Amino acid sequence: MPKPFKDIDLKKRAEIPQAVITRLPRYYRYLRQLVDKGEYRISSLALSRLMGTTASQIRQDLNYFGGFGQQGYGYNTKNLCECIADILGNNNCYNTVIIGAGNLGKAIATSSSFAHTGMFLKCLFDVKPELVGQKVNGCEIKHLDEMEEFWASNRVDVAILTLPSDAAVKVAHKLAELGIMGIWNFSEAELGLDPEKVAVRDVHLVDSFMTLCFDIKTIENNI
Amino acid sequence: MPKPFKDIDLKKRAEIPQAVITRLPRYYRYLRQLVDKGEYRISSLALSRLMGTTASQIRQDLNYFGGFGQQGYGYNTKNLCECIADILGNNNCYNTVIIGAGNLGKAIATSSSFAHTGMFLKCLFDVKPELVGQKVNGCEIKHLDEMEEFWASNRVDVAILTLPSDAAVKVAHKLAELGIMGIWNFSEAELGLDPEKVAVRDVHLVDSFMTLCFDIKTIENNI
Repeated sequence: MPKPFKDIDLKKRAEIPQAVITRLPRYYRYLRQLVDKGEYRISSLALSRLMGTTASQIRQDLNYFGGFGQQGYGYNTKNLCECIADILGNNNCYNTVIIGAGNLGKAIATSSSFAHTGMFLKCLFDVKPELVGQKVNGCEIKHLDEMEEFWASNRVDVAILTLPSDAAVKVAHKLAELGIMGIWNFSEAELGLDPEKVAVRDVHLVDSFMTLCFDIKTIENNI
Repeated sequence: MPKPFKDIDLKKRAEIPQAVITRLPRYYRYLRQLVDKGEYRISSLALSRLMGTTASQIRQDLNYFGGFGQQGYGYNTKNLCECIADILGNNNCYNTVIIGAGNLGKAIATSSSFAHTGMFLKCLFDVKPELVGQKVNGCEIKHLDEMEEFWASNRVDVAILTLPSDAAVKVAHKLAELGIMGIWNFSEAELGLDPEKVAVRDVHLVDSFMTLCFDIKTIENNI
């Protein structure tokens, strides 16, 4: 399987526009669905129609990684799907902990949607005594005070913060000290970590709901 | 309080770039924090530094709504905050139901983060007999079969889909028939509704995690 993206030099990787990076998982989703349906080949035009985008957008995006299509053939869906997973890093295994074992933490811990992302849940942490010792999807909930001890005997790559905002910043800085590589932040706090050392993605669910309200108001105004 | 955005004609509202709309909630968040801290005035430069963006970006974005700053004064944080909420439609009240009362549905139902968005939770629905009749944050979980009956005596504006993907499309089309205005879709299914009739925002948590993996890989490559 050719992996032309191996040719990108490391500097360029950091220069890829955010908009392109955030579109890659969407390509991956559609391609996976095609593979699951047994469709092993698709033209950029057909893919663009399916995704509600343009063929030139797709070609342009994938050209950041060396392109993948073949003139007159289109894309090999399985190959492209695996290449995108490789570009994104989802063929790796990320030892993950969830900090905050409330409903949201449990929702992520029990979701099957992350099976293809490399997320490998090791443990949940919380401060509530009634939660400590419980198991979620086979993983123990430990007390937050046991975090350092856990680190001493486990490699942890990614932490998912599903705890209240006021506690999130302090925990995030502790995680950075412990050498965490990535934080998926569901709290509303800005963590303020060094982006060259710790990758952080914030999920602002409230922002998403607010934009939905905008869309509703726009439709209402047009009716 | 001047509300210059009232002057935008309705056609223009639909023409505002998505990127601008998705940035508005972020402005709102920072401005609310300033108001909460008692800071009633800020220059576009100071705001841009706080937000890690540029002053010209802020001015450009807000100009879609008629601009709000005053030369030599900057922005009145409280006024701008309220104006953005008004533009987004978050000063309205949206009667909301959650369909899927699992961990994610419960997480949203019990979150205090939506207090300022206009979300007013009326009811949760699920198909699991053991959930039906339970209360979450004061709201009853009803059986999905009772949905139409509920609609007959309640106005519902927004539905939050936190149910499995395979059921989501069918439920979404039923909701559209019942006249729903907006759907906040956490399932991985593409709902395929008429965007002129029903506003839909998809939340793809998996996509967000995948981009975090990309960032981690980029940092790893640079070390």
